[in-house]
Amino acid sequence: MSSTAGQVITCKAAVAWEAGKPLVIEEVEVAPPEAGEVRLKILYTSLCHTDVYFWEAKGQTPLFPRIFGHEAGGIVESVGEGVTHLKPGDHALPVFTGECGECSHCKSEESNMCDLLRINTDRGVMIHDSQTRFSIKGQPIYHFVGTSTFSEYTVVHAGCVAKVNPAAPLDKICVLSCGICTGLGATVNVAKPKPGSSVAIFGLGAVGLAAAEGARISGASRIIGVDLVSSRFEEAKKFGVNEFVNPKDHDKPVQQVIAEMTNGGVDRAVECTGSIQAMISAFECVHDGWGVAVLVGVPNKDDAFKTHPMNFLNERTLKGTFYGNYKPRTDLPSVVEKYMNGELELDKFITHTVAFSEINKAFDYMLKGESIRCIIRMGE
Amino acid sequence: MSSTAGQVITCKAAVAWEAGKPLVIEEVEVAPPEAGEVRLKILYTSLCHTDVYFWEAKGQTPLFPRIFGHEAGGIVESVGEGVTHLKPGDHALPVFTGECGECSHCKSEESNMCDLLRINTDRGVMIHDSQTRFSIKGQPIYHFVGTSTFSEYTVVHAGCVAKVNPAAPLDKICVLSCGICTGLGATVNVAKPKPGSSVAIFGLGAVGLAAAEGARISGASRIIGVDLVSSRFEEAKKFGVNEFVNPKDHDKPVQQVIAEMTNGGVDRAVECTGSIQAMISAFECVHDGWGVAVLVGVPNKDDAFKTHPMNFLNERTLKGTFYGNYKPRTDLPSVVEKYMNGELELDKFITHTVAFSEINKAFDYMLKGESIRCIIRMGE
Ligand SMILES: NC(=O)c1ccc[n+]([C@@H]2O[C@H](COP(=O)([O-])OP(=O)(O)OC[C@H]3O[C@@H](n4cnc5c(N)ncnc54)[C@H](O)[C@@H]3O)[C@@H](O)[C@H]2O)c1
Ligand SMILES: NC(=O)c1ccc[n+]([C@@H]2O[C@H](COP(=O)([O-])OP(=O)(O)OC[C@H]3O[C@@H](n4cnc5c(N)ncnc54)[C@H](O)[C@@H]3O)[C@@H](O)[C@H]2O)c1
Ligand SMILES: [Zn+2]
Ligand SMILES: [Zn+2]
Ligand SMILES: [Zn+2]
Ligand SMILES: [Zn+2]
Repeated sequence: MSSTAGQVITCKAAVAWEAGKPLVIEEVEVAPPEAGEVRLKILYTSLCHTDVYFWEAKGQTPLFPRIFGHEAGGIVESVGEGVTHLKPGDHALPVFTGECGECSHCKSEESNMCDLLRINTDRGVMIHDSQTRFSIKGQPIYHFVGTSTFSEYTVVHAGCVAKVNPAAPLDKICVLSCGICTGLGATVNVAKPKPGSSVAIFGLGAVGLAAAEGARISGASRIIGVDLVSSRFEEAKKFGVNEFVNPKDHDKPVQQVIAEMTNGGVDRAVECTGSIQAMISAFECVHDGWGVAVLVGVPNKDDAFKTHPMNFLNERTLKGTFYGNYKPRTDLPSVVEKYMNGELELDKFITHTVAFSEINKAFDYMLKGESIRCIIRMGE
Repeated sequence: MSSTAGQVITCKAAVAWEAGKPLVIEEVEVAPPEAGEVRLKILYTSLCHTDVYFWEAKGQTPLFPRIFGHEAGGIVESVGEGVTHLKPGDHALPVFTGECGECSHCKSEESNMCDLLRINTDRGVMIHDSQTRFSIKGQPIYHFVGTSTFSEYTVVHAGCVAKVNPAAPLDKICVLSCGICTGLGATVNVAKPKPGSSVAIFGLGAVGLAAAEGARISGASRIIGVDLVSSRFEEAKKFGVNEFVNPKDHDKPVQQVIAEMTNGGVDRAVECTGSIQAMISAFECVHDGWGVAVLVGVPNKDDAFKTHPMNFLNERTLKGTFYGNYKPRTDLPSVVEKYMNGELELDKFITHTVAFSEINKAFDYMLKGESIRCIIRMGE
């Protein structure tokens, strides 16, 4: 038992008081975990587009003041009643989606979309009692996707916490909490390219580069990167991407360009853009007979996926995935082991590191498109 | 060697001289098979909607005079040069799609869409020399999908002929040449429902009933039949369908009705209608996390499949299939064995039988919606 167990902890957190305004490092009170919850000491956290998107709060219901952050690595400080799979001192990754272990999704081998702990970007409170665990002088501060890792301590539902190998460096594996697993799993768990096959990756942001890393690990021989920004191509080479197509360079649809490059289409395509046009192109560029396309990007509310049904009849498959089909508690430990044994490369995703006091710089790097992942060191 | 090998055979065939006009039984000359071809003596043939559709020739380029027919069972009479997998006397099923064994599709485990022998409804001649093997007093009579089984003898590309167990009754297994394998394979090879699962079948024609038979064989516990014609429901019970939904009985979309019946959606859906609305409903009625929908029906040229991309992101899968993903030469023998060992029931598909001279009655039964399959006995 740590001496802080059961006590309110006062610590530093980066609070977003208003949409789009720089975060402010504040002293916050973090309540102890309730039943089924865990309090984590966060050591490293990284910034993902989803944080920036909800911080900008364009097109969503704004919820402020709020503590963002959902990619992180930390150590269990204390656990609430009934938590048995974690104990103080365990190394852990909090995840924005969870695993209750009881619902039909958790019981299905195929799904990771837990009914209870599925991502909810609107909820700013804990499920247990609809209260926040964060406050500043009595004023509640909202949570974000159940993780709120831009704080030295945070409280998370135990179903959203994966216990990992304590030998694994948390300043590297923290990126597995969201984007990297999302892209990696889309390829290795869902698209499943065979050795020697061809894979098109639409979108070369962090998620797309992780999808490319998955294709590299799978032994794909042609990894075709597709992006509207040609400057992304240089970086992408490090991730196994060995051919590039910028749709803007062609006066025919990119699916046709790819079909011509690949004698009828790629074996697999993974869409990591969020653009509906890219989703349609990714599907239509896979080979008939065996091609599989996987959607990862989050579309707009009013988007419609539209294609001729013969594209399906000709034996193409279209799937979508959420968090790369990983069940966080069950599957993350083995992804960490893949990193430990050198199969999975994570260091190349980490382009920047800043101290917690400089967290707003991480936002700048991402907004300028300079970073893939920027690690924020809490312990200073 | 049969005494007719290498000779022109004169025999009876049912010739379609004009679109929509009754077939006429004529004496036709059937040339010997060229290299890579087989001449079959047809013993039994059955009528499929596709014959009727191209005979009516609404909306296609008409090609007449023509010999229709593509579901049949027969015996090899003689083989052309280079044919090694068949010999005179073999029992065989001709199929409208083939297996060259050499192309990328034939070499892929996943595809049955042979580049060379994939269905071609426009071609009325043999691939070898772009000639017909049928003629009446020197006038060429066109082939249909490479099979033209409404003839006592026909010539077929050897890649489109499956050799089967000679103990199997050809008057039953002839229905495996098209519709039954199409529906059966859509379920057992593509949708792959698990024992105890729920399956929705859209369209309860021959193809849909065969898809239901596949669900029954797979051990699905809820088999929900969906059709606009409620009279189809009684017959469907024999095929394992144990719940029914007529979209016309509801004032909300059928996908919503099914989701409410099944606590969020069915595990699998198989669409066997050709209606674009049914295709969309079949996809949208599968459960998130693990649901798989399979399209079988042939859509109209101008149809568009349209859905919100979040339906994919929520881990639903959409596939299409052609001939149930069966490779005819490789896979049909084992489907025949499933019938022989009692696992697969075929007799219930056969609702009518007529003599060859009464072949136009088979068209009447189908046009009136009275038959599932009508067997035409060639040998009177
Ligand atoms: N499904 C999940 O679980 C999950 C998790 C995290 C992120 N995401 C989504 O994945 C997507 C990618 O995330 P990211 O952080 O890598 O984003 P990012 O913005 O860094 O990268 C997206 C890339 O796509 C490119 N792009 C945009 N439109 C394109 C088009 N039409 N054709 C080709 N390229 C195009 C952009 O130029 C950019 O390089 C986003 O939609 C994000 O919301 C999904
Ligand atoms: N993919 C292939 O390899 C292949 C092979 C053979 C047939 N087919 C296709 O399969 C489909 C079915 O063939 P069939 O011979 O069984 O046809 P059918 O006409 O006998 O049966 C179709 C059934 O669908 C029902 N239906 C039509 N619209 C519907 C809707 N919106 N909702 C629910 N039910 C609806 C009809 O009432 C009918 O009972 C056709 O489109 C055919 O072209 C495909
Ligand atoms: Zn659950
Ligand atoms: Zn994220
Ligand atoms: Zn082939
Ligand atoms: Zn048919």
